[in-house]
Amino acid sequence: MSLDRLMTAIAAKQNPTVAGLDPKLDYVPGFIKRKAFDKYGETLKGAAKAILEYNKGLIDALCGIVPAVKPQAAYYEMYGWQGMKTLYKTQEYAREKGMYVITDGKRNDIGATMEAYATAHLGKVKVGSEEFEPFIADALTVNGYLGTDGIKPLLKVCNDYDKGIFVLAKTSNPSSGELQDKCINRVPVYEQLAKMSTIWGKELPGKYGYCGVGIVAGATYPEQIAELRKKFPKLFFLIPGYGAQGASAKDIAAAFDKNGLGGIVNSSRGIMCAYKKENCDETDYAGAAYREAIRMRDEIMGFVGEIKLPKKRAPKKKAE
Amino acid sequence: MSLDRLMTAIAAKQNPTVAGLDPKLDYVPGFIKRKAFDKYGETLKGAAKAILEYNKGLIDALCGIVPAVKPQAAYYEMYGWQGMKTLYKTQEYAREKGMYVITDGKRNDIGATMEAYATAHLGKVKVGSEEFEPFIADALTVNGYLGTDGIKPLLKVCNDYDKGIFVLAKTSNPSSGELQDKCINRVPVYEQLAKMSTIWGKELPGKYGYCGVGIVAGATYPEQIAELRKKFPKLFFLIPGYGAQGASAKDIAAAFDKNGLGGIVNSSRGIMCAYKKENCDETDYAGAAYREAIRMRDEIMGFVGEIKLPKKRAPKKKAE
Repeated sequence: MSLDRLMTAIAAKQNPTVAGLDPKLDYVPGFIKRKAFDKYGETLKGAAKAILEYNKGLIDALCGIVPAVKPQAAYYEMYGWQGMKTLYKTQEYAREKGMYVITDGKRNDIGATMEAYATAHLGKVKVGSEEFEPFIADALTVNGYLGTDGIKPLLKVCNDYDKGIFVLAKTSNPSSGELQDKCINRVPVYEQLAKMSTIWGKELPGKYGYCGVGIVAGATYPEQIAELRKKFPKLFFLIPGYGAQGASAKDIAAAFDKNGLGGIVNSSRGIMCAYKKENCDETDYAGAAYREAIRMRDEIMGFVGEIKLPKKRAPKKKAE
Repeated sequence: MSLDRLMTAIAAKQNPTVAGLDPKLDYVPGFIKRKAFDKYGETLKGAAKAILEYNKGLIDALCGIVPAVKPQAAYYEMYGWQGMKTLYKTQEYAREKGMYVITDGKRNDIGATMEAYATAHLGKVKVGSEEFEPFIADALTVNGYLGTDGIKPLLKVCNDYDKGIFVLAKTSNPSSGELQDKCINRVPVYEQLAKMSTIWGKELPGKYGYCGVGIVAGATYPEQIAELRKKFPKLFFLIPGYGAQGASAKDIAAAFDKNGLGGIVNSSRGIMCAYKKENCDETDYAGAAYREAIRMRDEIMGFVGEIKLPKKRAPKKKAE
């Protein structure tokens, strides 16, 4: 019912980073594409199979050192339902390898429909007398533009299945300020969303000081990260924008508390395309991803220090 | 590059309504489910096949009188990749039957990722030397929370493939005001989004006075609809909330201009579940949907009057 499992995984690996799986076909090494196209043709199925193999290689390389993966739904939808099958198979493989799965879908809708999204990504759906997981994730990114009744159904599902959500607050892109930095009663919109998230999070308390509703806070806006951390001590941050989007480790240092908790930093292209930057043989793409993940971990841990899970305080005894 | 094709379809049918296809399995008549479960088991595949058959029956019944369908992505994602295959097959069938397809996905992300969503839903993806349509839609609903660079890639794809988008402004749900009604410099957030949509829409001019960027404006908020129509004459409205959500035809009358253009009104459960309300034999579900669609059309047309496509004014001759 919270993000505790994520924090446990982060502490176990001493690594507060997540590998984004945003597999454009251009990123997939030629030898994998050729094999898939030979078997399935230059088709959506061929593309989807190539991406799955690429992802599995990355997961195999990363699962020992990185606690979580974040598949971005758009890059799977781009290859049709065949791509969505690859999303499912990728999630399933990551879970088998013990990784925490954050699906980046930024879903949002009115209550009845949000129930369907919550079921799709975090819950189980009933078909006749059977139950199925349509997709597999431990947490989902969502957009809070529709207010409380677009979030409520997620809280119920998170509670039932021990899952979490991340609400968009301050996104990492250049134009995020057009709406998010504007003030409502002197409080910027991104902070309004953080406030609302704190209220929603009360339904999903966690053992380590953070609730089950986190927020997305872009590494490209370090001042806002620092401010959000100060004002919202119970919100865990999902932090995109590191690496390919330009932010560095010191930009995100303020997200972390004295226990080294408080956030998880995403890198997608930086890890997936490390083999292009290294200019190594493409068959070593997973090795290059591993080396980049280690480099990133070490850089960030240099600012974070040791990660400790705080012991839960024993409930105060009432005076008799 | 705009919503002109939608308006042409509305005028041809003299019907400014769209049938929402939000197929929860509970809505699907028993005889269809039994047939699918007998063949494919009580599985995600069985559910997806049942929904496809249900949708096809609805499309067959409605395509002669209703110009458009609006499949809601959540209800397909809820049945996994098998459900997404049914989304594709439903879209394909609706297109074959000459219907305009609006995919209700409320997608949103940073620029690079939005390009993937735009490709997935409105464009074509390249695989080797081949091109494919991952999903099939003429328009897509999107969320503008990330600002201009989350919308730009859509404008390009709309321009390339003659498609349109609808940006969330004032949604139909009870808590929509929590953020959307709050004021930024005395202008409510939903109006800010309408302003931004007008700017984005300049890249997609249309022949009938409306640009290719429309907005979502809920029928459950008639005052806001009237105000938005007055202030934003170039924005076409996608209007949810009629019927099951409680709004009536007169609530949305203000959306329409003197030519009877300006909006399209959605009904999902009202049409899909008409057979339950009518209490007719479930095998006549498509007939009941047809009767409800006619009733809705007639009720709304009572307020709208005749729909005429304005002739494009000849460009003014420059004085020589």
